[in-house]
Amino acid sequence: MKRWASQKAAREARIEVGSRHARGKVVALTELRDFMEAVLQPADRVCLEGDNQKQADILAGALADVDPRKIHDLHMVQSGVVLPEHLDIFEKGIARRLDYSYSGPQAARIARLLFGGHIKLGAVHTYLELFARYFVDLTPNVALIAAVSADADGNLYTGPNTEDTPTIVEATSFKGGLVIAQVKEIVDKVPRVDIPGDQVHFVVETGRPFYVEPLFTRDPAAITETQILTAMLAIKGIYAPYGVRRLNHGIGFNTAAIELLLPTYGGKLGLKGKVCTHWALNPHPTLIPAIEAGWVEQIHCFGSEVGMEDYVAARSDIFFTGPDGSLRSNRAFCQTAGLYACDMFIGSTLQIDLEGHSSTVTATRIAGFGGAPNMGSDPHGRRHPSEPWLMAGAEADPDTPTPLRRGRKLVVQIGETFGEKNEPLFVERLEALLLSDKLDLELAPIMVYGDDVTHIVTEEGIANLLLCRGRDEREQAVRGVAGYTDVGRGRDRKMVERLRERGVIRRPEDLGIDPRDADRRMLAAHSIKDLMLASGGLYRPPSRFRNW
Amino acid sequence: MKRWASQKAAREARIEVGSRHARGKVVALTELRDFMEAVLQPADRVCLEGDNQKQADILAGALADVDPRKIHDLHMVQSGVVLPEHLDIFEKGIARRLDYSYSGPQAARIARLLFGGHIKLGAVHTYLELFARYFVDLTPNVALIAAVSADADGNLYTGPNTEDTPTIVEATSFKGGLVIAQVKEIVDKVPRVDIPGDQVHFVVETGRPFYVEPLFTRDPAAITETQILTAMLAIKGIYAPYGVRRLNHGIGFNTAAIELLLPTYGGKLGLKGKVCTHWALNPHPTLIPAIEAGWVEQIHCFGSEVGMEDYVAARSDIFFTGPDGSLRSNRAFCQTAGLYACDMFIGSTLQIDLEGHSSTVTATRIAGFGGAPNMGSDPHGRRHPSEPWLMAGAEADPDTPTPLRRGRKLVVQIGETFGEKNEPLFVERLEALLLSDKLDLELAPIMVYGDDVTHIVTEEGIANLLLCRGRDEREQAVRGVAGYTDVGRGRDRKMVERLRERGVIRRPEDLGIDPRDADRRMLAAHSIKDLMLASGGLYRPPSRFRNW
Repeated sequence: MKRWASQKAAREARIEVGSRHARGKVVALTELRDFMEAVLQPADRVCLEGDNQKQADILAGALADVDPRKIHDLHMVQSGVVLPEHLDIFEKGIARRLDYSYSGPQAARIARLLFGGHIKLGAVHTYLELFARYFVDLTPNVALIAAVSADADGNLYTGPNTEDTPTIVEATSFKGGLVIAQVKEIVDKVPRVDIPGDQVHFVVETGRPFYVEPLFTRDPAAITETQILTAMLAIKGIYAPYGVRRLNHGIGFNTAAIELLLPTYGGKLGLKGKVCTHWALNPHPTLIPAIEAGWVEQIHCFGSEVGMEDYVAARSDIFFTGPDGSLRSNRAFCQTAGLYACDMFIGSTLQIDLEGHSSTVTATRIAGFGGAPNMGSDPHGRRHPSEPWLMAGAEADPDTPTPLRRGRKLVVQIGETFGEKNEPLFVERLEALLLSDKLDLELAPIMVYGDDVTHIVTEEGIANLLLCRGRDEREQAVRGVAGYTDVGRGRDRKMVERLRERGVIRRPEDLGIDPRDADRRMLAAHSIKDLMLASGGLYRPPSRFRNW
Repeated sequence: MKRWASQKAAREARIEVGSRHARGKVVALTELRDFMEAVLQPADRVCLEGDNQKQADILAGALADVDPRKIHDLHMVQSGVVLPEHLDIFEKGIARRLDYSYSGPQAARIARLLFGGHIKLGAVHTYLELFARYFVDLTPNVALIAAVSADADGNLYTGPNTEDTPTIVEATSFKGGLVIAQVKEIVDKVPRVDIPGDQVHFVVETGRPFYVEPLFTRDPAAITETQILTAMLAIKGIYAPYGVRRLNHGIGFNTAAIELLLPTYGGKLGLKGKVCTHWALNPHPTLIPAIEAGWVEQIHCFGSEVGMEDYVAARSDIFFTGPDGSLRSNRAFCQTAGLYACDMFIGSTLQIDLEGHSSTVTATRIAGFGGAPNMGSDPHGRRHPSEPWLMAGAEADPDTPTPLRRGRKLVVQIGETFGEKNEPLFVERLEALLLSDKLDLELAPIMVYGDDVTHIVTEEGIANLLLCRGRDEREQAVRGVAGYTDVGRGRDRKMVERLRERGVIRRPEDLGIDPRDADRRMLAAHSIKDLMLASGGLYRPPSRFRNW
């Protein structure tokens, strides 16, 4: 006779052996290695919490410390491959298979391990896509998560970095999996309950906070005048005419420049209240001046940002905060918001090809996707209209009669024609294709596909791909804003001129923008210190960003 | 000086006046009307919980009972417009604006109220899209939700119908909004904590369970032989060749027939373990025989289904269940799973036009969207490959070289050429267009757009729209399976024959299926009683489905 509750029975058995190394639910650090070897089993599917920000670092270290003769062939299903330990476990043979989303700081090493065959790769996902699979075919047997504090019952407080935790716990705990949390301390009563204790089986008291990366802090001092020019183009040439109120920004300096130009340049254009009122965004420090100037109505966050805790807590009309006062972030909901409730995604990339495909992968670095492909895609399941969305749809498809014509999500790539280390942004062939050949991948790691991109902004101008009819026009529109790169110099000058006459390409002068006005004095803040001052001292930048 | 915590202050004020009608967090039924009039304010944005299944029915009644001179112009943002009270509030002037997703049983009355101008319509959404907006620009000021029980601290137990509750509460409670829950009873300790008490401000003890609709129960006795034929075509012509393992089924009899044919017809075809192993699906009673026969590995559920509680609890290896033993459903995560982790959506519709657009709207009934447009759309943000997805992508786009070619979600419409009341499934012009003219909508209420549909299955055969090149071929492929409807009789016979030669259209005989084999004896269960017996008595059908 078939048994139908074998998963719960297996969990009970894990809890029983784990309890030998615990007092109630609480595991001491000294017992951690024995505990891990007791509760884990070879070939387990394990979710080790960690995205681009918070990390269950102590549990990652403990996992890398188990005896590979006892625990091996794990299948890791996790948002981020960020800490060295995340890859150590593959080198040691503790883990074998990997499904993940983001690997920024480990991009080079993960590529080497993939080439060397140390990792059997499932797929590189977007965050939301990986979360989706947690509920379908990548459900974890064990989740190793991170919180700030816990009570004796296992109720968890995550503080502002709630991020992926509720999603991971829900998928694991309700499907017979084991949930183990690292916390700084055990307290009598948690400041708020982010995860109910009955979903948590063990808690490890570590005595120190989990690791968090301040990934979204951009120093205004490092913003160049070329970036300011691209920001002016975006504001006047895209934000204003479409009236983009609901949006997501990428992580780069170009969008940081936009944030810092809203109260100054945007104000002069009379855009306050007309654009950038509702956001799916982490608490970017560079958004402080716009918030203080009353531009922003509401922000929902994927995660938090180091140093922004007090500022966010003091601005509960803008941010989602809990009864404890601090931010409540939630990556799954914020990605959903970015997908379905935002009219624009704008971000930078490393390479763009002639079809408008973009990628952040090089032949030796696999950075993963994070959330960009989810937010930088046109959601066919959307059914609510908005002005920017309808306007973009009409540009793309003027022929379909109105009630049957869908809108389009604005997906904007912004950057300088020559990026870091003077590498050209535009290429004939993406390095992502080299990589997919080398690894024999079925899909090249494309961040945003050309058919989803609506605009490309460089210092040379804006290419509106919505207005392109056919492949040739699209290619020339891309070339037409590619500056002095090889791709740009390969343009058909006549065709580019015709595209410009039709408004497919718009130069700064077409928009009434004088590039000489792109001056750093236009930024609402010129340094991290300015941001701190603009926040009334509430923003407390991490020490590495302080030079005063 | 700008105040930055006005929302939380406003909530504190609401809690203070509400507390005058409560003992701690608990509001007695006798106080409910006064309580509601105290905590609500004109023009509030209110989320009244209710989707296609569970309903906060007592709170809906209480809302309809407030004095419209005191409480008026509410903006309702809710998944379902299902109970009469949901529309009474508009007739009475208590509410004015509406953003919603589903309105099955109220489809005719909501249409009348829209025509009459009683409702100022925002938009009709998919569930996930509306949830997304809860975090961006439709955040509720007040949420009226439903649970099974609560403790004195407001910790909530939802039982198997968790559904939308965590999403609504998160959006409302963390953004300064007020959360009011109706529960059957106050208990010392809830069986599991679905919503932590610090997110819940008031609890109304009603003495009876919230209303739940058994919407996903299909009586096998009502399945016709034509439906069995379409089910055979789908299994042999789509499920088998694509190897569809991860999927979502619609709510109709055609897909119920597929569920009941898996262990019989599917077994003969040797498909066990090769198709239909992982589901985003409610606990459909018609899936019991396939589950019992070992076809199904895992199911994640949007909501529960009346009568399936004990069966689900006894099958925790298949379903997501909590420490209390009962189902944990979650609509937001299940919709995300349906969007990003499923390779197929298959469902029925009311009308399909020559481009393959489909709609369930008629000129006098607005049923809303529910979840179908979300799951029945090609997710451009998907980045993980799977066999069915890659195969569909290759059929749609054989020319793009492999690593740059994306896959495609299989989106299948299944039905008989003449549906209920002998109405044709295929039409030249959707009634949805009449309706959008009449209401002057910017978007016609299209359920699934033609460019997202990959296959149409009728008793005449399967049209594979992925293989169509151009609009003409698509139209003839649609006409080619439209039978004796006007659309079907309008076909270009030669072109349809050529499409059949190319495998774009496949007739039953092309698949080796003899329509005479489509016999009710092939169903794994012939009645609700059979389903109950197949479950070993664990499935307890609602009385309206019992005739023994």
